[in-house]
Amino acid sequence: MLKTPAWAAPSATEPLAPFAIQRREPGAHEVLIDIRYCGVCHSDIHQARDDWGGSIFPMVPGHEIVGTVAKVGDQVERWKVGDVVGVGCFVDSCRHCEACLEGEEQFCSEGMSVTYNGYERTDGKLDKSRPTWGGYSTRITVDENYVLRVPEGIPLDRAAPLLCAGITTYSPLRRYDVGKGDKVAVVGLGGLGHMGVKLAKAMGAHVTVLSHSPSKRDSALALGADDFLSTRDDSMFKEHAGRFDFILDTVSAAHDYNAYLGLLRRDGTMVLVGLPEPQALSAGSLIRGRKRLTGSLIGGIRETQEMLDFCAEHGVAADVEVIDIAQINEAYERMMRGDVRYRFVIDNDSLRTEDVA
Amino acid sequence: MLKTPAWAAPSATEPLAPFAIQRREPGAHEVLIDIRYCGVCHSDIHQARDDWGGSIFPMVPGHEIVGTVAKVGDQVERWKVGDVVGVGCFVDSCRHCEACLEGEEQFCSEGMSVTYNGYERTDGKLDKSRPTWGGYSTRITVDENYVLRVPEGIPLDRAAPLLCAGITTYSPLRRYDVGKGDKVAVVGLGGLGHMGVKLAKAMGAHVTVLSHSPSKRDSALALGADDFLSTRDDSMFKEHAGRFDFILDTVSAAHDYNAYLGLLRRDGTMVLVGLPEPQALSAGSLIRGRKRLTGSLIGGIRETQEMLDFCAEHGVAADVEVIDIAQINEAYERMMRGDVRYRFVIDNDSLRTEDVA
Repeated sequence: MLKTPAWAAPSATEPLAPFAIQRREPGAHEVLIDIRYCGVCHSDIHQARDDWGGSIFPMVPGHEIVGTVAKVGDQVERWKVGDVVGVGCFVDSCRHCEACLEGEEQFCSEGMSVTYNGYERTDGKLDKSRPTWGGYSTRITVDENYVLRVPEGIPLDRAAPLLCAGITTYSPLRRYDVGKGDKVAVVGLGGLGHMGVKLAKAMGAHVTVLSHSPSKRDSALALGADDFLSTRDDSMFKEHAGRFDFILDTVSAAHDYNAYLGLLRRDGTMVLVGLPEPQALSAGSLIRGRKRLTGSLIGGIRETQEMLDFCAEHGVAADVEVIDIAQINEAYERMMRGDVRYRFVIDNDSLRTEDVA
Repeated sequence: MLKTPAWAAPSATEPLAPFAIQRREPGAHEVLIDIRYCGVCHSDIHQARDDWGGSIFPMVPGHEIVGTVAKVGDQVERWKVGDVVGVGCFVDSCRHCEACLEGEEQFCSEGMSVTYNGYERTDGKLDKSRPTWGGYSTRITVDENYVLRVPEGIPLDRAAPLLCAGITTYSPLRRYDVGKGDKVAVVGLGGLGHMGVKLAKAMGAHVTVLSHSPSKRDSALALGADDFLSTRDDSMFKEHAGRFDFILDTVSAAHDYNAYLGLLRRDGTMVLVGLPEPQALSAGSLIRGRKRLTGSLIGGIRETQEMLDFCAEHGVAADVEVIDIAQINEAYERMMRGDVRYRFVIDNDSLRTEDVA
């Protein structure tokens, strides 16, 4: 086993602190990755604070991982030492259910092995004696089939958030075939929203940012958005009724789905990727105009690779603020206040200075 | 003008009673229809009692109309005296908006002229001095383009409910391409639900009825359903998670959308055609399994004709209980108790015995 510096949440109520973990030597079909950067996702906070229940402590968060291959197992042919790679929200799945066979591992009927706050598999089955540890650490051992190639041309710190924020927004845009001339609204301008703007623009759409904060207008336009509408202004919802073909809703705070559905054209689609508390939905909001409300959950390995290749081809990467691991608790506080443009990314070298070898 | 016997709700709180109305002589592009039967839709009750607000009184309800052409305007070429025809939920629309041009008149951007509790058009514009009167009357004058042909082979009393209950359920089944082998659930076994079962079966689907009333099992199977599940049994929702490709939800009483969404397979679709009060929707119910929730609103003239032709070809018609107009208030009471299999239909000859000439 490889003693590995990490930072963990000891419990739901304590700040994150240094915590040494063990990584396994790569098995025949595994690779050991030296982690270079790890993005800080809002779900890291929710899980570290057990907001959703069932959290496993101590918890080493982090599922937006990029790094370089340090060692490969005997049977590994796809990867070699030095390859620049990524790991996203899951590190394994059952591999035989319908979803896995279709490359939609995120919907694995036995449950994904999520990258942290979950369980590794033993003989293909989730093994509750083997918790997963995430990217707030210096290295990780992962099955070769759950590793992504980070194409040349994307700065590594700015690539990390693509592994969750990128695929979460790319997948529904692609599924609903967003393209040239489509009128797309992106609701919320945080880690997810800013990727939604960049990706929808790269796909050729006319993109409008809808945000509660009128102060975000300039930032939205700077990111490439064509327009900005403040959702604080109730008359906006009337004035722009029926305007959009597609709405990507990234907001996790309470908001009125019915109001946003009113902004869709007939037969338009609104996709939820945020997780607010249950909200009141009026059937009439869907019936009038035959609108569709749906959700989307990250993406499978194949689609995540497609997204990374798309980003490299179109010069898309996250806007990030790089931090040392010692700043992580402060970063969480700032994220809770919405004070980040648009993603914190940990420079994992800052974990290597600690003496745990 | 043609003095015409009808029954009307004088106000939201009084029972329906006889009320003579005037029908116009057909204009150049209009037809006068002798009404033979008119179905009694749940929305007749909601509107007569002003449950949705904005009702226009006195109100002559009824938008499931079949009859024979009695007279045609000078310029009418499509219809001749004696033709068996139908009129559904609307009698006119603007004819130049995108929806109208696409044959989706139910989404007319200026608003349909609904068959009752709405307004006729003067020079193409909704005219608040000309309320519409519905099918609880002996005749109606309608523009030739808003009249449907009732094909031979469908008994007229059983054809009437197709004009609303039929098209309301046919349209979403067709839109989502329900066909052979698809696993379809129909939620609720009333006027809409029983048509949903018949139509989905005729399209080749495997149909399961979900109902709060276990006593409806036999009726469901008698209608052609392949299976029945009681929604009173909470364990059902667990046991049958992920089972259905498509759910047609016809229920207007409060129910938990999240529970029903759990019965859909990944990427499955649930269509709402009932109008309950707003219900709490959890984003996770859509995100997990990438499910779609949508609504549907009757159908355009072209699709309504297609539905009638489909019904004739497949021997589909509503199951009805024919009543005289004098029974209408009692029928409303029985409908509120769910005591009808599955649609009351007024024999409009019962209106002709009154002396209003």
